[in-house]
Amino acid sequence: MKRLPKRGQYDHEAVHQILDEAFVCHVGFVADGKPVVIPTAFARIGQELYIHGSAASRMLRSLDEGIDVCLTVTLVDGLVLARSAFHHSINYRSVVIFGIARLVEDPAEKLNALHAFTDHIVHDRWQDVRPPTDSELRATTVLKIPLEEVSAKVRTGPPLDDEEDYALSVWAGVVPLTVTAGVPIDDERLNGIEAPDYVRHYTRNRS
Amino acid sequence: MKRLPKRGQYDHEAVHQILDEAFVCHVGFVADGKPVVIPTAFARIGQELYIHGSAASRMLRSLDEGIDVCLTVTLVDGLVLARSAFHHSINYRSVVIFGIARLVEDPAEKLNALHAFTDHIVHDRWQDVRPPTDSELRATTVLKIPLEEVSAKVRTGPPLDDEEDYALSVWAGVVPLTVTAGVPIDDERLNGIEAPDYVRHYTRNRS
Repeated sequence: MKRLPKRGQYDHEAVHQILDEAFVCHVGFVADGKPVVIPTAFARIGQELYIHGSAASRMLRSLDEGIDVCLTVTLVDGLVLARSAFHHSINYRSVVIFGIARLVEDPAEKLNALHAFTDHIVHDRWQDVRPPTDSELRATTVLKIPLEEVSAKVRTGPPLDDEEDYALSVWAGVVPLTVTAGVPIDDERLNGIEAPDYVRHYTRNRS
Repeated sequence: MKRLPKRGQYDHEAVHQILDEAFVCHVGFVADGKPVVIPTAFARIGQELYIHGSAASRMLRSLDEGIDVCLTVTLVDGLVLARSAFHHSINYRSVVIFGIARLVEDPAEKLNALHAFTDHIVHDRWQDVRPPTDSELRATTVLKIPLEEVSAKVRTGPPLDDEEDYALSVWAGVVPLTVTAGVPIDDERLNGIEAPDYVRHYTRNRS
């Protein structure tokens, strides 16, 4: 289990890669003294994370001063099968961000965030779609959290069994898991418009 | 967006399917007045959810009376590409559980939970592996949360565009996403033991 260093000095590139690959984050906040965790779409712009939607609306009752959040992103990479039940595990990459989420009010910044949300789902999608109207922009709640107090945790590699268990006649290893895009499903009202390449050959790898 | 009914009367089967398909949950709790969200392995036995590992150990400082948690599981099923940026979305299934997590102390119940953790990763794996020793059992912290205050939220289907946008010359539809198991990676010290069928043809579908 590797834990990348916390606060400031963390490995930006590793953290950014995990954030940019995930589709949803889990945002936690405290409401009436109790924890609430909601999945929500998000996007990163540089060293800021933006979230929007229903999670924000539930958090917003007391957002004048910002709200403490913990925002967690997890990618599951494989099932780790050991010789003993005890050492079974999961290979994963996760990022945990602590910070104060603040309302984005500047229209230009909000527009940038919506641009980032769209391109986070499909890279370069923004250029093909109808941009938000002013009223859509006003109707969208956007929050941002700085990437300051951030930690990443990564498990990779084979199972780690107790030395005496390596003699057991039990298969051990890793079942790798990947998220795969299937054949795109056309909307019923397309009128013959064909799926663009970025949909027919969807890949999460942007490099 | 379908929201299944909350508390008691919810659709058990739909909730159980989502829980049983996911590999990790995100458990939220309050520490020093602030939210913390940690990904962790889990398993369901009937109407109880069990979690273990590092999340529990961080939560345990004040667990005598149990600790308020919110436990969220999310499966991402597809990318929803609309004609407008504003209506882009994600198809997903999620379950949110509120409750008090309590320490499992009875050794028999703890053993059942470890059995469930192992079989949650790979169905029927438990019967092939070395079972936990008493000291492994003691070294494992297990918490349980009853499935009482539970809600599920599901988005399926095509994008929903504004009526006037259906005339735009923009492709719209859904890119389905699935989690796929790859070729199993043998541990280096297998000594010729072959991968069992449940590893070579891994599937999450248990029916």
